[in-house]
Amino acid sequence: MYTHEIESFLEEDLGYNDISCKLVPDHYVEAIIFTKGDCTLAGLDVAISFFDYFGMDYFTNHSNGDRISKNDVIFTLKGSSLSILRVERLVLNFLGHLCGIATNTSRCVDVVRSHSSDTRVACTRKTTPGIRKYEKMAVIAGGGDPHRFNLTDSVMIKDNHVRMMGVEAAIKSAKEKAGFTQKIEVEVESSADALVAAKAGADIIMLDNMEPDDIIKTVDLLKRSSIPEHIMIEISGGINMDNLEEYAKTGVDVISMGSLIHKSQWIDVSLEIVENQEI
Amino acid sequence: MYTHEIESFLEEDLGYNDISCKLVPDHYVEAIIFTKGDCTLAGLDVAISFFDYFGMDYFTNHSNGDRISKNDVIFTLKGSSLSILRVERLVLNFLGHLCGIATNTSRCVDVVRSHSSDTRVACTRKTTPGIRKYEKMAVIAGGGDPHRFNLTDSVMIKDNHVRMMGVEAAIKSAKEKAGFTQKIEVEVESSADALVAAKAGADIIMLDNMEPDDIIKTVDLLKRSSIPEHIMIEISGGINMDNLEEYAKTGVDVISMGSLIHKSQWIDVSLEIVENQEI
Amino acid sequence: MYTHEIESFLEEDLGYNDISCKLVPDHYVEAIIFTKGDCTLAGLDVAISFFDYFGMDYFTNHSNGDRISKNDVIFTLKGSSLSILRVERLVLNFLGHLCGIATNTSRCVDVVRSHSSDTRVACTRKTTPGIRKYEKMAVIAGGGDPHRFNLTDSVMIKDNHVRMMGVEAAIKSAKEKAGFTQKIEVEVESSADALVAAKAGADIIMLDNMEPDDIIKTVDLLKRSSIPEHIMIEISGGINMDNLEEYAKTGVDVISMGSLIHKSQWIDVSLEIVENQEI
Amino acid sequence: MYTHEIESFLEEDLGYNDISCKLVPDHYVEAIIFTKGDCTLAGLDVAISFFDYFGMDYFTNHSNGDRISKNDVIFTLKGSSLSILRVERLVLNFLGHLCGIATNTSRCVDVVRSHSSDTRVACTRKTTPGIRKYEKMAVIAGGGDPHRFNLTDSVMIKDNHVRMMGVEAAIKSAKEKAGFTQKIEVEVESSADALVAAKAGADIIMLDNMEPDDIIKTVDLLKRSSIPEHIMIEISGGINMDNLEEYAKTGVDVISMGSLIHKSQWIDVSLEIVENQEI
Amino acid sequence: MYTHEIESFLEEDLGYNDISCKLVPDHYVEAIIFTKGDCTLAGLDVAISFFDYFGMDYFTNHSNGDRISKNDVIFTLKGSSLSILRVERLVLNFLGHLCGIATNTSRCVDVVRSHSSDTRVACTRKTTPGIRKYEKMAVIAGGGDPHRFNLTDSVMIKDNHVRMMGVEAAIKSAKEKAGFTQKIEVEVESSADALVAAKAGADIIMLDNMEPDDIIKTVDLLKRSSIPEHIMIEISGGINMDNLEEYAKTGVDVISMGSLIHKSQWIDVSLEIVENQEI
Amino acid sequence: MYTHEIESFLEEDLGYNDISCKLVPDHYVEAIIFTKGDCTLAGLDVAISFFDYFGMDYFTNHSNGDRISKNDVIFTLKGSSLSILRVERLVLNFLGHLCGIATNTSRCVDVVRSHSSDTRVACTRKTTPGIRKYEKMAVIAGGGDPHRFNLTDSVMIKDNHVRMMGVEAAIKSAKEKAGFTQKIEVEVESSADALVAAKAGADIIMLDNMEPDDIIKTVDLLKRSSIPEHIMIEISGGINMDNLEEYAKTGVDVISMGSLIHKSQWIDVSLEIVENQEI
Repeated sequence: MYTHEIESFLEEDLGYNDISCKLVPDHYVEAIIFTKGDCTLAGLDVAISFFDYFGMDYFTNHSNGDRISKNDVIFTLKGSSLSILRVERLVLNFLGHLCGIATNTSRCVDVVRSHSSDTRVACTRKTTPGIRKYEKMAVIAGGGDPHRFNLTDSVMIKDNHVRMMGVEAAIKSAKEKAGFTQKIEVEVESSADALVAAKAGADIIMLDNMEPDDIIKTVDLLKRSSIPEHIMIEISGGINMDNLEEYAKTGVDVISMGSLIHKSQWIDVSLEIVENQEI
Repeated sequence: MYTHEIESFLEEDLGYNDISCKLVPDHYVEAIIFTKGDCTLAGLDVAISFFDYFGMDYFTNHSNGDRISKNDVIFTLKGSSLSILRVERLVLNFLGHLCGIATNTSRCVDVVRSHSSDTRVACTRKTTPGIRKYEKMAVIAGGGDPHRFNLTDSVMIKDNHVRMMGVEAAIKSAKEKAGFTQKIEVEVESSADALVAAKAGADIIMLDNMEPDDIIKTVDLLKRSSIPEHIMIEISGGINMDNLEEYAKTGVDVISMGSLIHKSQWIDVSLEIVENQEI
Repeated sequence: MYTHEIESFLEEDLGYNDISCKLVPDHYVEAIIFTKGDCTLAGLDVAISFFDYFGMDYFTNHSNGDRISKNDVIFTLKGSSLSILRVERLVLNFLGHLCGIATNTSRCVDVVRSHSSDTRVACTRKTTPGIRKYEKMAVIAGGGDPHRFNLTDSVMIKDNHVRMMGVEAAIKSAKEKAGFTQKIEVEVESSADALVAAKAGADIIMLDNMEPDDIIKTVDLLKRSSIPEHIMIEISGGINMDNLEEYAKTGVDVISMGSLIHKSQWIDVSLEIVENQEI
Repeated sequence: MYTHEIESFLEEDLGYNDISCKLVPDHYVEAIIFTKGDCTLAGLDVAISFFDYFGMDYFTNHSNGDRISKNDVIFTLKGSSLSILRVERLVLNFLGHLCGIATNTSRCVDVVRSHSSDTRVACTRKTTPGIRKYEKMAVIAGGGDPHRFNLTDSVMIKDNHVRMMGVEAAIKSAKEKAGFTQKIEVEVESSADALVAAKAGADIIMLDNMEPDDIIKTVDLLKRSSIPEHIMIEISGGINMDNLEEYAKTGVDVISMGSLIHKSQWIDVSLEIVENQEI
Repeated sequence: MYTHEIESFLEEDLGYNDISCKLVPDHYVEAIIFTKGDCTLAGLDVAISFFDYFGMDYFTNHSNGDRISKNDVIFTLKGSSLSILRVERLVLNFLGHLCGIATNTSRCVDVVRSHSSDTRVACTRKTTPGIRKYEKMAVIAGGGDPHRFNLTDSVMIKDNHVRMMGVEAAIKSAKEKAGFTQKIEVEVESSADALVAAKAGADIIMLDNMEPDDIIKTVDLLKRSSIPEHIMIEISGGINMDNLEEYAKTGVDVISMGSLIHKSQWIDVSLEIVENQEI
Repeated sequence: MYTHEIESFLEEDLGYNDISCKLVPDHYVEAIIFTKGDCTLAGLDVAISFFDYFGMDYFTNHSNGDRISKNDVIFTLKGSSLSILRVERLVLNFLGHLCGIATNTSRCVDVVRSHSSDTRVACTRKTTPGIRKYEKMAVIAGGGDPHRFNLTDSVMIKDNHVRMMGVEAAIKSAKEKAGFTQKIEVEVESSADALVAAKAGADIIMLDNMEPDDIIKTVDLLKRSSIPEHIMIEISGGINMDNLEEYAKTGVDVISMGSLIHKSQWIDVSLEIVENQEI
């Protein structure tokens, strides 16, 4: 995390004059950060950025992506009580939010993996404004795929492009206009269009809002048509924890779920001071 | 929303070169933004900032705080297709997230109001880093109370201050050090301390992690002790949708719930193009 | 002081290429910063931020708020001559300006304290644009009260609200709209309105531009009416060093003076190199 | 004033949620900004930047540098009451501070002009951190000279350069290292050094902390030595309103006074709403 | 171009007080921007951002990518002379630099196209720090390919990865770690490694610093091995205008040249005032 | 280089998640940065800022301005492989670009010096937007003169001022409006105007687009007219490497060439890892 980001987050939370922290003299403190529920870890690097900014010592034997249990200690911290008070809320907000996303993601990944070892679970551009990169990294920590970061990353041909130009012409135009490092993805609503897209050279074919049965038929059609192996079949739309299993069975390459992020809920992460000492 | 904020959010989502939007020529487009579920509105002003930035015409007959139903139209937009593609995801991300918070808040407020017309439901400093002000405004839109914005806003005497100095001395010190416009809040864990705090001049007494029964006893004790009327009794810790009713019956002034924000989930808000026209 | 603030102040003063500092080779230098007049110290933490940024060693046996005499040394510095040349003007500008405010404040506080041990002297939002937080901290260093930081901090009902809604309705509306951590202040111009405000639940009653006699009568009326003890009576408008004594005798809780800041003048603070040594 | 500056100043003063301005519905308002004392105007362009940012109509028949009298109207404003409340304090803070500097400057300029029509009164780098450019423009509005803006603008050879290298060698080195568009200024403490500096090619000779008598002797010596006409003689150090007249009589080219800025005090500028109308 | 970018570029060029533009009263002016040599246009959108910022009227009948001749008019401008003076240098600097890149690119594209209609000419990450996105867009305007924008865009397996892990293992690891929207590129130095890479699933195979003969052999080997059609063969290293033709004949998919940008030279673009009129 | 600049350049090049650098475990690495061609060094301080930011050890026995030969080592670096991968491209882009400018400049300076030991070679405001200060420092490193930095630095009277006011009146007006630390430069197109300018008090006379013969005549006329010695004669317009010798012979004080920067081409600077070691 860059210094200017650290400071901008601190400014939001601290204001100019925190009286509370002036009530007692500064102390040398040892504290632990632990989780109150089972979770998959994310954001440890973010937390460390704040510890470093304030010159605090920290210890952890975990990494992003680790699955830990209720009451497991994530960090042991040592430093001035003043510094700990200044980062406490911010670090816990980041850890709570990001571990929430990672945990939600790893749950979905587990469901999918039990049916298909090759299917990826991806998030989308439905992210909280301002912190997309941290949320995408949390999805990765949870075993998910970050999907494209922004509109420039890769090319997405949407339904209204298809409606106006047809699948084939749209892909042809995209291949001309896109850079050679960008993949071209097409959103289709029928098996027929999926096949056209595959033949026209799409790299990713996204089956939009299709029922599991139709997805299976489409995948089958594509396989029988010997489409190039590198083409990824992605499904998206209306997939959630409840129906995920059914979709996982379709054997597609990627299942995209905005809900990895926007239906996630914070993990309860707490800080507790375990030792106090006069400085 | 300030220009520099608008641009910083756009930079996150757009990147430098969106090929997709160049596949078809720019069009004059009419679109609607509508909700796919019942919700309480928030963030309309945020959305309007983006419409204004791109010079788009918009119409709405709603305000923040309105409760609307599935399929209700929030905005009608007119402008170039290019501009609409550029704001679509960002505006929907904001509306989805903020209406989610407002809706969660208004549900809690409804539960509380059915038992106590004067009790406020407040959020905390558990907010998503970077967008606290938008989240606090969403809580307000949902009928909630924003609580303090940052560490400077008001003074909070915490358990470890109490442990080191005692309630009375801590409040005395805080009153000397705080500005006269700042309220002083004390976190207590017993009825006895609550009474000491009230007599020592605290403006807000926060009963931390108390059971409903203990809360009722403490409120009763405070009332019988004729503490000044302006003192607010706040409860916090472990309160959620499931047990909220029980806490609402205690008749305290404020119920604080971090979960207003961190357990909220996005409302499904969509944009649909309803008319296309060559420019 | 955040890194981005330090750098923004340096950029203003340095430009891209200081020839003067290249005329002689870099030296290891010892320097002192001292005052050329009696003053109350403020901004020591600001100065230290700049010393730290350039990796300079410093020593001080003073704290913000200390009253020192002509020729007293504030800081002893050690470091490269180049770094000292780069921070000299900026550090002296901050110290000169902020000690000026602290000194002006402590003079006013002394006058007030000799008549009323409980009366606070507060500044206002009349601050130099861009550095309000440093100026408010200087007022605190001088023994003053920072008053509210911005328009959000607390609620201020002004004369034109009163004119349009009446005192009682305005307070009622403010209490509904404000958060429970915000104090509500009302600006009144008569004893009668002051009493109404007190009964309607204002936390702070500001007697605007009243003569000392009227203030005394109003305070007397309020006391006789047994208004709640926590209510603060503030006076503001036309109060300056010349007439401060008279106002101090009224025994109000707070005397607000924009002039703490905007009539303050810089303290003459100088840097002198005391030892040079080839690096 | 750039948009990012406007917004950064607004963020300091407004916070995220001003309740006061929500107490009454938005109104169409006409207001005047006027001065409560005689003054020289500065900062009108700064004020206009804020009016433009909020889309307010304004009228003025004054320019920066105009001398106006008590109660003269500076601006007539028309716009929404909400916008006026948002810029009021900030615009008045800028006008009060900058007109204070311009007024202080024009007073000094008047004193000097009555003795020497060609002598300039200049400020220094003793400016309030963060707003130097506005303060320098205020000095210009008051008839003063802005002096160099930062350390890069022109080259200043200081006493410790002279001590280490001698005047002649220091100037020679500076001429080699400086760009050809930069003037070279030398700070000297004796007539002898002044003469050496003039012969060595300095563009500006600054007589540091000299008494009026010595200044006159030095100027005389320089004139008799037929130094090039373009060389400017500047005096600095210990000059203030009280002794300015004496220094003005010396007939030097430039009198530099940090006090133009740091001893200035705000002009009392007020905003008054003159007409209200429902929107 | 975002407002904050426009302002940051203006601040660099203007400083706080341009005296030159105050010598004559503001005028209504008509001006043309034209080229003094044949060139391919780029950066017109950048120029327009500055015209819009200052509210100037402009007209052009060109688009980025147009090839124009000496003395052709790019823009006709109308506006205040003051605004034109403020944007002149900055707009010409952008146009001169970006048209230089576009022109250099289109020359290379012409050479390549005469031998291979499908081969792309791409730039690299060798760009001027701070303005990469404008330079990449200029390459696109010249008919080139922008290649990846930053290290995140796509995955590049370099020689030292190959050395440590072998081609196959490196690609396998990359495919697991990369997102599914990211292409995987491998840098190889032999035909053998190229074939391994193709079979292991690389999307792009970059032949690093190979001689034309070896390239032809490698391409031939790959074709004979029936590698998937979507795989792009890129060459890079030591290719310049002088030897480009030889490389173009190899029939690879992409020729990457850092020199598109770093060997480009500015096109001479000038502004001339054609009509003056008192405002 | 300020932290916020370092981070802004890094953000452009890195993106949020570089997979490549995660393929192999972090290593302790020793690397060298060397040049592939003879060059004059510039930007060493810029490179060092990036090394410091990542806590890398570096060694160099060169300074900006040193002329080095093909294969000479500029820096030896030691640090984690991850950090080296992160700064490699950015540091090489800066060094390649800035050494290119310094080398181009030193070549021009050599040509000029062989004919005139006192003539300066200066760049102009034709610089790449966003990095002017680094480019100007590179010109200085190459032995050139940075000329004015921005429009505020010094006053430039241009042809259209002359056309509207005449040379004499324009200079008189400029002298009144400019600060006393600013030099006044006039652009003239005839010997006659040059003489008028010299007599009216210009500090710098710029002969615009004159042929060498006319320049010689003008210089001669000015010398015979005994104009003050401090006046600098500058020539500009249409001067390049090919015709520079001819202009150098005119004996003017300054030759300005935008092409120092905009016709410069990058020096090929490379990084090579020389030793790898497990961390």
